[in-house]
Amino acid sequence: MDHSEVMQFVGMLVVVLTAARLAGALAQRLGQPAVLGELIAGVLVGPSLCGWVDPDHQALRLLSELGVLMLLFAIGIETDLTQLVRVGATSMTVAVCGVVVPFVLGYVACRLLGQSDLRSIMAAATLTATSVGITARVLSDLGYLSSVEGQIILGAALIDDVLGLLLLTIIEGLSEGHGISVGLVLGSSARAFGFLIAAAAASAWGAPVLSRLTARVESPGSLTVFAVIFALSLSWLAQWCGSAMIIGAFSAGLILSRMPRLHEVERGITTLGHFFVPIFFVLVGAAVNVDALSPTTPDGRQALFVGCILIVLGIAGKLTAGSAPFWFRGNKLVVGVGMIPRGEVGLIFARIGLAAGVFDPGLFGAATLMVIVTTLAAPPALKRLLREPAEELDAESEEPSIRDLATRA
Amino acid sequence: MDHSEVMQFVGMLVVVLTAARLAGALAQRLGQPAVLGELIAGVLVGPSLCGWVDPDHQALRLLSELGVLMLLFAIGIETDLTQLVRVGATSMTVAVCGVVVPFVLGYVACRLLGQSDLRSIMAAATLTATSVGITARVLSDLGYLSSVEGQIILGAALIDDVLGLLLLTIIEGLSEGHGISVGLVLGSSARAFGFLIAAAAASAWGAPVLSRLTARVESPGSLTVFAVIFALSLSWLAQWCGSAMIIGAFSAGLILSRMPRLHEVERGITTLGHFFVPIFFVLVGAAVNVDALSPTTPDGRQALFVGCILIVLGIAGKLTAGSAPFWFRGNKLVVGVGMIPRGEVGLIFARIGLAAGVFDPGLFGAATLMVIVTTLAAPPALKRLLREPAEELDAESEEPSIRDLATRA
Repeated sequence: MDHSEVMQFVGMLVVVLTAARLAGALAQRLGQPAVLGELIAGVLVGPSLCGWVDPDHQALRLLSELGVLMLLFAIGIETDLTQLVRVGATSMTVAVCGVVVPFVLGYVACRLLGQSDLRSIMAAATLTATSVGITARVLSDLGYLSSVEGQIILGAALIDDVLGLLLLTIIEGLSEGHGISVGLVLGSSARAFGFLIAAAAASAWGAPVLSRLTARVESPGSLTVFAVIFALSLSWLAQWCGSAMIIGAFSAGLILSRMPRLHEVERGITTLGHFFVPIFFVLVGAAVNVDALSPTTPDGRQALFVGCILIVLGIAGKLTAGSAPFWFRGNKLVVGVGMIPRGEVGLIFARIGLAAGVFDPGLFGAATLMVIVTTLAAPPALKRLLREPAEELDAESEEPSIRDLATRA
Repeated sequence: MDHSEVMQFVGMLVVVLTAARLAGALAQRLGQPAVLGELIAGVLVGPSLCGWVDPDHQALRLLSELGVLMLLFAIGIETDLTQLVRVGATSMTVAVCGVVVPFVLGYVACRLLGQSDLRSIMAAATLTATSVGITARVLSDLGYLSSVEGQIILGAALIDDVLGLLLLTIIEGLSEGHGISVGLVLGSSARAFGFLIAAAAASAWGAPVLSRLTARVESPGSLTVFAVIFALSLSWLAQWCGSAMIIGAFSAGLILSRMPRLHEVERGITTLGHFFVPIFFVLVGAAVNVDALSPTTPDGRQALFVGCILIVLGIAGKLTAGSAPFWFRGNKLVVGVGMIPRGEVGLIFARIGLAAGVFDPGLFGAATLMVIVTTLAAPPALKRLLREPAEELDAESEEPSIRDLATRA
């Protein structure tokens, strides 16, 4: 093992963990969710400002992927499946409108701005994303995850992730020049949604089997490792089936949420999450390229102009989606705002566009600006809308809990 | 992020964690330390047999490095500095004899077998290694870490690691053709040992400062992350000073072992260790190349022959070292056997020899065989010598403890 390689990795890890911890605490002192601090810390230590952390470092990226899988696993454990199914139609409506409306708005606007067909499609696709990681963290930060609005947002963000996967399949087909068949799209849809439905079914009858299996495990440490192995296996399986890894991790949490001795697993996963989850958010921040948005260059000004238009459309599109389920009597504004952050999903879209040669640096900068602003604006906006969160959920115990993944200070 | 890359990583991680858990439990059922099972599991899933896990995968290797750092950090927390200093002279004698005796024996034997001067030096250097990770895990497995013999072995293994670093500096100078100056060696020694001494001093007056700092941290989760950041920072600093990373991690544990609310940190580190530490041992096993030792080829037979000689010398050298401190009244055989496992340190030496073009595949195979046998033989041998470990240390509580990193089942 090359020593300098290990040293570089350990050094970056120290920077990431320290920055996340300090900025998270500072954000909370200012009355903001910790995740906002972690994202900004990422921008600061990333290559466009301090340059201490390389978001393309393979091992760091993979650790951050483990972080988002653990976060979704923890969220899955906290989620009540019956409640999620009850709001299923509402979530589905929000998710579909949250993809269709921003896509149409973005496509039309880009065409009017004189962009090519393929570029407009790619920019519009970036607008459809919802970061389930950031959405879930903010809801958890504010103690709002188990509210009806929280469940609708969570369900819609998960479905949005699957829809995004389908959209990517279609765009890849288009950008490689060959057409897309209805069969391909239907097949992808069936696989992507099939996993989620199968996992929900498995959670119903899998619980007794798991109870018997885990009753034999004696040490609490073993139980946590067992849970992690289970979550990672299901993540792998979901990807292999053509669905998304985070869907697998979330499903694993849903299935285990009925197991006995859940408390021991929750405690273990929370400790692991304290280590892994902030790595994810700092790396999302570090992946942001601030340089493309300098107002001192004509390209930068053009990118800022297009970016502002994308921001307005991105926010308007998701707010429309939030108010689409006309039968829902709860706070539609909360649902809409909860869908706004694009986060890592938006960045992934933008980077694919750049890598495939569809985006020029200017349009990439504009898309990035839209991702930054929607990601950073949503947490404080939600915080304002949801003053006085459900206090009794937090005051229970001194023990670290999964909610503590967010509200630690 | 490329999906197939994440999938491959998550898949290997699932294999590593599952294999470690199953083989560890099986080893314990057969009355052996869990670490023996993890090492053998590594050989099984590694490239020379099943080929499911690539020990050269960057992210996996870096995770395994985090594993050994966390192990040494945990061991440092458990270690009583005053006791370690009290047995310091004994440890130093064992360490120095444990380097000099196997080196001389190995060099003479290799010269007699007709090997070149540089090759003989490299093979002899491989014989001097002691795996502080494996030694410490076995002692912890058997509840013997805080015994006098345990502390002597631990101290000697740590010093051995620093001596090994010096030896590598010298050999690199030799193999690159330019000579070595006394000044270089003295400078390296001063830096390598200086860190350990500075850390020991820091632990004496650093404790009150840390108490005040940590008293302000409210959430238990934060305290664990703070401890991890501290351990990784000191590991980085140790390497930067010219010492070894594990010395830094161990020192961090020593310094924190006097902090208040140690129990919370211990619990958190244990949970993280359950995840990271087995990755290290499985990867040590996976790095072993079984193919070079096939008895069906002449090269393989030659390698087996040289390997057997190295094994005998390697064991004899360390047993001599164990009996060298004539004033010590305890069980010298235990000390000698505890120094036998070469583990990852031996593999690192052997791989450097191969990469530098000093070893041919045959001598590399022989060195590998010596590493495998000494590593796998020591845990059961120690287990036999130390029947009936200190029971009362384990039966205390249901809580996961640092000792539980080893004895979990």
